[in-house]
Amino acid sequence: MVALYTPTPLTLDSCRAMDAADPLAPLRAQFDLPAGVIYLDGNSLGPLPKAAVAQVQDALQNEWGQGLIRSWNDAGWIHRAQAVGDAIAPLVGAGPGELTVADSTSINLHKVLWAAMALARERAPDRRVLLTERDNFPTDRYIAQGLADQLGWTLHEVEPSAQEALLAAMARPDVGLLLLTHVNYRSGAMHDMVAINRAARAAGVITVWDLAHSAGAVQVNLKHDEAPADFAVGCGYKYLNGGPGAPAFVWVHPAQVNRVEQPLRGWLGHAAPFAFDAAYRPASGIARYTCGTPPILSLTALQAGVQTLRAADPLGGIAALRAKSLSLTRTFIQASRDAAHAHQLHLVTPLAEPQRGSQVSWACGPGAPDGYTVMRALIARGVIGDFRAGPRPGEPDILRFGFAPLYNTHEEVWHAAQALGEELAHAARHGAPAAQRPAVT
Amino acid sequence: MVALYTPTPLTLDSCRAMDAADPLAPLRAQFDLPAGVIYLDGNSLGPLPKAAVAQVQDALQNEWGQGLIRSWNDAGWIHRAQAVGDAIAPLVGAGPGELTVADSTSINLHKVLWAAMALARERAPDRRVLLTERDNFPTDRYIAQGLADQLGWTLHEVEPSAQEALLAAMARPDVGLLLLTHVNYRSGAMHDMVAINRAARAAGVITVWDLAHSAGAVQVNLKHDEAPADFAVGCGYKYLNGGPGAPAFVWVHPAQVNRVEQPLRGWLGHAAPFAFDAAYRPASGIARYTCGTPPILSLTALQAGVQTLRAADPLGGIAALRAKSLSLTRTFIQASRDAAHAHQLHLVTPLAEPQRGSQVSWACGPGAPDGYTVMRALIARGVIGDFRAGPRPGEPDILRFGFAPLYNTHEEVWHAAQALGEELAHAARHGAPAAQRPAVT
Repeated sequence: MVALYTPTPLTLDSCRAMDAADPLAPLRAQFDLPAGVIYLDGNSLGPLPKAAVAQVQDALQNEWGQGLIRSWNDAGWIHRAQAVGDAIAPLVGAGPGELTVADSTSINLHKVLWAAMALARERAPDRRVLLTERDNFPTDRYIAQGLADQLGWTLHEVEPSAQEALLAAMARPDVGLLLLTHVNYRSGAMHDMVAINRAARAAGVITVWDLAHSAGAVQVNLKHDEAPADFAVGCGYKYLNGGPGAPAFVWVHPAQVNRVEQPLRGWLGHAAPFAFDAAYRPASGIARYTCGTPPILSLTALQAGVQTLRAADPLGGIAALRAKSLSLTRTFIQASRDAAHAHQLHLVTPLAEPQRGSQVSWACGPGAPDGYTVMRALIARGVIGDFRAGPRPGEPDILRFGFAPLYNTHEEVWHAAQALGEELAHAARHGAPAAQRPAVT
Repeated sequence: MVALYTPTPLTLDSCRAMDAADPLAPLRAQFDLPAGVIYLDGNSLGPLPKAAVAQVQDALQNEWGQGLIRSWNDAGWIHRAQAVGDAIAPLVGAGPGELTVADSTSINLHKVLWAAMALARERAPDRRVLLTERDNFPTDRYIAQGLADQLGWTLHEVEPSAQEALLAAMARPDVGLLLLTHVNYRSGAMHDMVAINRAARAAGVITVWDLAHSAGAVQVNLKHDEAPADFAVGCGYKYLNGGPGAPAFVWVHPAQVNRVEQPLRGWLGHAAPFAFDAAYRPASGIARYTCGTPPILSLTALQAGVQTLRAADPLGGIAALRAKSLSLTRTFIQASRDAAHAHQLHLVTPLAEPQRGSQVSWACGPGAPDGYTVMRALIARGVIGDFRAGPRPGEPDILRFGFAPLYNTHEEVWHAAQALGEELAHAARHGAPAAQRPAVT
């Protein structure tokens, strides 16, 4: 399979040839992509699956409109979050009934971190350091810092984000907990989850993984035989194509799930929600990570989104998706490299493929054209990536291109690289920085 | 206005006459109610607004499908939760920019209770008793108990739910916080919010209100000049008609909102979410009660739902809705009373109208027919109320009928009362208890 995607002398024709040989090519027809758009932002918001239109319409008009309250039983609303969780589970190496869908990634992260702290306290009460990375996604760090403050832990942020630095930090005897995002949102660098979990287990450290930029794009094996993870959360609206603000997922290793509660005691996480019991008893298994009533319309769209990925199962599944993802990023790096280097952009995404997620990020070095201007021009001509400003002084702005093996093609990669080269050249000739940046960049 | 709804000698014709004189009658046409159904469960799940179909379709196909990631700015997704919050605010006596939409009622309750505890600790560190009612909705009590355990408070549950008992308990010098649901989910009994807030302020007690069964059905004045509330949450899918699992709302009095944080530090509650700052700084105002990304499809349906209520503004708004709600419940009590009493059902909803929410609950006393069987028969013939089992030994099962002044009619009330009488008589003649109750009752 991988051989199909080995780069050839790179031309528009060779890109088309790779697409012609792509066994996953038919899966693109599952989406309603706008004409004239090359969409390279599926790592921020996946596109609309055709099935989502029909399924949400059915949820609206038949289930809600005609079924009304009866649909909690008759249409299976009450079981839908778990059904979608079961559909996601194999994409991240989890078993049936182990992963559920609820709330947002941020809230699920709060739940699992709190639970992981409770578990750590049980195991080794004096290990109260929570290890994470300085470059982790802000919400992860905010939630970690908040819980550390609330529960008397110390947050230790490793920098730079290198595996050796993490492993060294984990050797500290006071570290109880490790929180990592598997694929970095800015750089696209991917951790070796198995190696880190193995080291964590050896050191007695509990692991919490954020799979926001992993699920549906790269292989994840949460329940690895020798080196399983302990807790994980992930996002529904990126590579899972669940729609804007789709509910998120949460997984806890079955060996741990019943040992601790999570802190948000909503009625749907109760062992018998409709008994309206006087006292709270957490449900057995991952259902205890549910809190309130799930947003059924958004959940239904997520169900359709996950189905677009599971449609790859007979074609090789996540292994085939990963092989194509690498082919797309490899091709884009090759096709855009000369122009990028000529304009003082440097690659922050790893060239080493086992360390690369499903995106390519070009950083604007000193002397580079204004990155926001370049991305705005690309979007205006229909090549949609995104822009991430440097989060701290001295850190570069980034042009971020996400590649979704489910619908992106090598021909799109080719055109996007050409467009990037042209807009870099144009901005270098004309470019004053853009005056105004909107709320969302 | 109220005079229109004064009961007359009660017949089908007099019910029709009340409908003919009802200035709110045209508002029913906003909904797609199934043929042959009398829907008296809008206090559990409001029905589908016609506008929701079009608006969700637009959010799916145009905003998501065509706009893709650009819709966060171009379609205003980033501001939608606050826009819906601003549309809800006048229904509960809150000002613009003070109330926002986020997450579920359960999660919002966790946020505000935690924040209220932080505020109470600042004011009077030794007042660590959280007062609530034994009959409060289970999720409220679970969340209160959870936070009390986590933060070293004591939960004190008043019983029975009488205002005098609450006021007496509030006089205890160690009470710092009062959590109440305004309208009880089982009985439909409504607290006098102003009187309780006045007493709470006099006693130095912080108030947290759950408006799940109030918003859109009864008058609420959170910002009452002399006796305002401190914190409130409420539900989007009951009288606000936001659809199954619609996001919930949260309000904090402007005098308190910036004095404390809430515990779920997601990136969208940050002062500058897209700066991806290293450190968390809570947003100013109610925006800090946001956590992760909102579920846009469900939020869009809620927007349509709230618009169905705001359509009553030119016809008298919430005051007119409340007057009609009382007329509907008064008529139902009158029309069903004789049959109910004949079969050992007793009214648990207050007859005194200032104490009545927008529902009527008949409790099954000793010797009454099996309530679940009766409700199942009613639903089978298209009269949809719901059944709530007694939550504790010795507490009666309840037949619950919700009346939504936006779409229910007095003629429906008449037919529902007739149907209830017939099914009680039928069950009394034949009735063995129903063998099986499904997951959701």
